[in-house]
Amino acid sequence: MATERQLSRRSLLGAAGAGAVGLTASAAGTAAAATRTADVCVVGAGLAGLTAARDLVAAGRTVVVLEARDRVGGRVLNLSLTNGGVTEGGGEFIGPTQDRIRALADSLGVATFATYNTGKNLLYKDGKKTPYATDGLLGSVPPIDAAGLANAAIVQATLDDLAKQIPVDAPWTAAKADEWDRQTFETWLRANAVIPSAKFLFDVACTSIFSAEPRELSFLFVLFYIAAAGNASNPGTLERLTETAGGAQELRFVGGSQLVPIKLAAALGDRVVLNSPVRSIARSGSQYVVTADGTTVTARRVVVAVPPPIAARITYDPVLPAARDQLTQRLPMASVGKAIAIYDTPFWRADGLNGQVVSDSGVVSSTFDNSPPDASYGALMGFIEADEARKFDAASEAEVRAAVLKDYATYFGEKAASPSSFVLQRWNNETYTRGGPVSIAAPGVLTQYGPALRTPVGGIHWAGTETSTFWMGFMDGAVRSGERVAKEVLGAL
Amino acid sequence: MATERQLSRRSLLGAAGAGAVGLTASAAGTAAAATRTADVCVVGAGLAGLTAARDLVAAGRTVVVLEARDRVGGRVLNLSLTNGGVTEGGGEFIGPTQDRIRALADSLGVATFATYNTGKNLLYKDGKKTPYATDGLLGSVPPIDAAGLANAAIVQATLDDLAKQIPVDAPWTAAKADEWDRQTFETWLRANAVIPSAKFLFDVACTSIFSAEPRELSFLFVLFYIAAAGNASNPGTLERLTETAGGAQELRFVGGSQLVPIKLAAALGDRVVLNSPVRSIARSGSQYVVTADGTTVTARRVVVAVPPPIAARITYDPVLPAARDQLTQRLPMASVGKAIAIYDTPFWRADGLNGQVVSDSGVVSSTFDNSPPDASYGALMGFIEADEARKFDAASEAEVRAAVLKDYATYFGEKAASPSSFVLQRWNNETYTRGGPVSIAAPGVLTQYGPALRTPVGGIHWAGTETSTFWMGFMDGAVRSGERVAKEVLGAL
Repeated sequence: MATERQLSRRSLLGAAGAGAVGLTASAAGTAAAATRTADVCVVGAGLAGLTAARDLVAAGRTVVVLEARDRVGGRVLNLSLTNGGVTEGGGEFIGPTQDRIRALADSLGVATFATYNTGKNLLYKDGKKTPYATDGLLGSVPPIDAAGLANAAIVQATLDDLAKQIPVDAPWTAAKADEWDRQTFETWLRANAVIPSAKFLFDVACTSIFSAEPRELSFLFVLFYIAAAGNASNPGTLERLTETAGGAQELRFVGGSQLVPIKLAAALGDRVVLNSPVRSIARSGSQYVVTADGTTVTARRVVVAVPPPIAARITYDPVLPAARDQLTQRLPMASVGKAIAIYDTPFWRADGLNGQVVSDSGVVSSTFDNSPPDASYGALMGFIEADEARKFDAASEAEVRAAVLKDYATYFGEKAASPSSFVLQRWNNETYTRGGPVSIAAPGVLTQYGPALRTPVGGIHWAGTETSTFWMGFMDGAVRSGERVAKEVLGAL
Repeated sequence: MATERQLSRRSLLGAAGAGAVGLTASAAGTAAAATRTADVCVVGAGLAGLTAARDLVAAGRTVVVLEARDRVGGRVLNLSLTNGGVTEGGGEFIGPTQDRIRALADSLGVATFATYNTGKNLLYKDGKKTPYATDGLLGSVPPIDAAGLANAAIVQATLDDLAKQIPVDAPWTAAKADEWDRQTFETWLRANAVIPSAKFLFDVACTSIFSAEPRELSFLFVLFYIAAAGNASNPGTLERLTETAGGAQELRFVGGSQLVPIKLAAALGDRVVLNSPVRSIARSGSQYVVTADGTTVTARRVVVAVPPPIAARITYDPVLPAARDQLTQRLPMASVGKAIAIYDTPFWRADGLNGQVVSDSGVVSSTFDNSPPDASYGALMGFIEADEARKFDAASEAEVRAAVLKDYATYFGEKAASPSSFVLQRWNNETYTRGGPVSIAAPGVLTQYGPALRTPVGGIHWAGTETSTFWMGFMDGAVRSGERVAKEVLGAL
């Protein structure tokens, strides 16, 4: 069953913001060209858009990628540290069955290393700290009451069983889709996780996985997300979402995850145009005119590879079919931030701790040891999620820093209160993402609007991790969506 | 308690589309001026924006109203008939406690008449038609089983009681807000409307009131909407939402509801600029630059009076706070269409029917007699709502017409299959509304984002029926929001 250790894990889609280790203009081109023509115009230079562009170029097609930001990577973002190191403000982890991001990283020569996972986890609950072992054949056993453990095991097994009934390419066709899509995950949990300590574990799992509270999510969407945490030969499980070893948080990228999109973009050269937020996509005969600030591209096909609520803000002419438009009104971004405190050493390791906390309070309720592979300095990374993220959206960075370091000191002792530096990435405040890590679906959305996720509209095709059948919400899903959409476009050209 | 008669009633916010009885260019100005300066720029010439402009002008302020469409009225729309008459594609009804739309209409000399309500209602259920009386001191009793009636009476009383606990200006502060906002209306109904016939009545009431299925709505949002169906001296009730006589569908406007915004705009003259969709709102020192296609306005304050998902599509500089942005990602438009069939006479009246149907099947499950006050011709108006609206979004008008007329013939006999003309208004397909009649909130939205509904952002203020504390979703709420925002702006200028 899932343990707190497992439940504390999550994988944030990479992304970017102020202070980003940006792609230099020389590496990926600038917005110099006022007008361009190509077979395909790709909107968004995240992993999805860049992967699509790579495959289209490999097939001999001309491509222009328009990126709103001054960097590539979308929700995958390296942040520079004052000590010369790099940490990640967005998606950072990869794990088993995430075959496509793995293959992409391999092809670009970006190596991986194991997420630090030695020592004990820490449960902070009811004002009490309890370290507990994370090893063992069946995973760790969180220090909660036996009844809660038994209840949690049943709930987890039930979730996995139900997820097996979800066709990942069309969750809305599941036999019980209507039943599952008419209630929130909160409603289902209240009927099933009846022991308070078990409910607590799943509440933390939910915010950790989705950066959303259980009340915000359709139960069908949750089951789909679990089902999608696998590949064609390995059905998804909740454990694979929440695990470090053997799960989605198993590995990290040497040099930071944004190296992957940066190298991918470098290979595309001046096909990638930065600082070019797309404002409109207009059909003109058999062509599309894509207008961005500073650049206009004429192309036969368009790939929109940005999150659904951002895609909704582009002006389409002719307007999109109602199903597609209303879908994008109904897939809001969840709410997430990451806070990384840097120390001279990962001092918690000497205390026998792995840096991973699960907490029932604080602005940060789950943490990771985000130190570099050589442990030349220490890094504690904490997620600020859902209701907590919203509370701090309007706070100053100093206020967030104070709240986060108070939590870190509670979990790891006074040393944690005085980092050598501190970086904060709040995705809700990012102009071109406005939340994260991924879109979420409330009840009624997938059963009514699901097919519009991937159905092309004329020559406009949809990509992005939200359109992936496996590992939606992860870097792997983004890459898969890019590969799928490239095939789709090549078949249509 | 609510009867089918009552349950079949709904009030659609007015709106507009192709074939609209538009405001002529001479009456409201054209987009001739390339740049304008004013104290206040209002975005959107629906009832909210026009009311705000009226009050600001009355207070001596200069105002420019930018309207995307070639007409005013937003979700209030008159449609021309081939017989020279006029029918309504959007909001049309008004009723008791809707004091502000009433006062506005009175001031403009737009008269009202009673919605046709003589004769029997028709229940179509399980393939059987049952006419039933609509009169009586306690309202009509729908022909369902006694257990269902008893259950429905209790559910309705409970809804009204719970709604009394909602402060309409801040539903998220209700003592039980968290409990009510973590479940769908469907979940609550399943626990309370346990007799199938009672559940049926509330399902129809839900789609009739919200154009949304019970699974799409937060229970807190439903309670707020009921609480808002009143005024400061009369608490809202479900019955007032669903009733014709004594309720929100009691009266109609002579000449069609769009006469109200048309006359309001005429008084504003060339302050109203049509054909000017606003693309960006940028702060520039102490001013805002509002850029629309063809027109740029510089103003000290901006009033955004368009539906939340449409407001989200404007580019703001600086970007909006996360709370406001994520709110607009979470208030999708519901799904609605109106189908009006025109006949030489309202022939159903001779059969003792009032033209009002409640049905458990068909594309149209609730209808009204929309004939003019002199009954010089007959008009059957049917709502196409929620799942049914979505099913027909992509259908041709001929397909929708065939499906609707099949329903009308089932309900009213073969004569209904051959109207002299037929008009269809599908709000989901409207570029500047993209659904209707109103935004809806899924679980978790109001408790986390509610305050952002009306909180100004710098010099940008928010209006529209979605921001009203009373009669949200109705013309009255739109007018109230315009009056409130004008006071807000005058206090700030």
